[in-house]
Amino acid sequence: MSGLVPTQPAAFVFDLDGTLVDSVYQHVIAWQEALQEIDLGLSIWRIHRRIGMSGGLLARGLLRETGVELTPEQITRLQDSHHRHYAGTRDSVRPLPGARELLRHLTDCGIAWTIATSSRRADAEIMLDKLGVPADLQMVTRDEVARAKPDPDLFLAGAAKLGVPSRHCVVVGDSVWDLLAARRAEALGVGLLSGGYGQEELERAHAFRLYADPADLLNHIDELGIRGVGVA
Amino acid sequence: MSGLVPTQPAAFVFDLDGTLVDSVYQHVIAWQEALQEIDLGLSIWRIHRRIGMSGGLLARGLLRETGVELTPEQITRLQDSHHRHYAGTRDSVRPLPGARELLRHLTDCGIAWTIATSSRRADAEIMLDKLGVPADLQMVTRDEVARAKPDPDLFLAGAAKLGVPSRHCVVVGDSVWDLLAARRAEALGVGLLSGGYGQEELERAHAFRLYADPADLLNHIDELGIRGVGVA
Repeated sequence: MSGLVPTQPAAFVFDLDGTLVDSVYQHVIAWQEALQEIDLGLSIWRIHRRIGMSGGLLARGLLRETGVELTPEQITRLQDSHHRHYAGTRDSVRPLPGARELLRHLTDCGIAWTIATSSRRADAEIMLDKLGVPADLQMVTRDEVARAKPDPDLFLAGAAKLGVPSRHCVVVGDSVWDLLAARRAEALGVGLLSGGYGQEELERAHAFRLYADPADLLNHIDELGIRGVGVA
Repeated sequence: MSGLVPTQPAAFVFDLDGTLVDSVYQHVIAWQEALQEIDLGLSIWRIHRRIGMSGGLLARGLLRETGVELTPEQITRLQDSHHRHYAGTRDSVRPLPGARELLRHLTDCGIAWTIATSSRRADAEIMLDKLGVPADLQMVTRDEVARAKPDPDLFLAGAAKLGVPSRHCVVVGDSVWDLLAARRAEALGVGLLSGGYGQEELERAHAFRLYADPADLLNHIDELGIRGVGVA
């Protein structure tokens, strides 16, 4: 039978930090340092649970936790300060186990994939090299969309770059914001534990499948309907 | 009625890192740096989930995850290296919200309490000052027991210092290792989210009650049977 409807996921859209590269904890510490510079002492676990969401929403969450309201200018300065602190640790960031192999496997199978990240383009490009991915990958970064996660814009733009409807995409992420954005993009959300969320937190955020890290996903990729090269 | 059996928890034994002070993520990064020095690239979230357990058990876990077996000498060097990296960030560690107030409230209520930590004494003493606790507190540190968590030794020794049977103690901790050690000490284990574990992870580890942080525990301390000063 020829397929009028795709018989397997047509494409993958990956989050970057905590999903393909092991950078979440460095981001957490960098946010804490940036917050301490303006005398905002938010507990570090609360910062961790907000990694990957937009800076504007992060600031709203801060307001609820600390009672401090930031102006748009202060938010911009806070983001710049986070960026500066993170840049100091960026060299130590490594790909997560299996990340390079997973992306290569998808390419070998002829499955389209890309990366859609709340990071700035300059930070993301450094990670492409670590992942063994060509620098001209058509990825989507924060600079290209109006709203970051949990709005669906990043994943919708990623699907558009692949020329695939987002509802035919598998979105892979490590945070509840990824999974919420995946659902709002009508994509199939798959969770990874490698960003440090608990398994049940991601299940409650409606991850359709859950794996430890990219290596574990690759080892079970048949569960997502991906046949190997030449497998019917 | 006079009480032959105590009608409220007779004493509290607190874990330190992630429970009273906001130091878990600094410990995580310090372990990662120590592991990288011996070319062991363990994902950071896997390190996070092992914080607070004994160095020997950590090394066994490493063996399972990486296939690398460490000698006792290598484990000691790894622990020394972690200690050195952590010392560099120790100054930035702050008490968790409500920690100082919670300890003061217990003292005001005449409830005995102490701290039992897998940290070394020198590291722990620096934190006492940040917590506004007298330096002569009869706490228990790693140096004083044969086995760290999840063995019950630290909490048993804490209860002994207070002169209270451990089964009459409330043990407060942020990790599944704390809760496992509390159960093995026959104490009532209470969990805090402030170490970065997910709520369901701690529930599954049989936390009898669960609070966000020390401030949240203090705000609900009646739920643990603690009456205020002069409350019948």
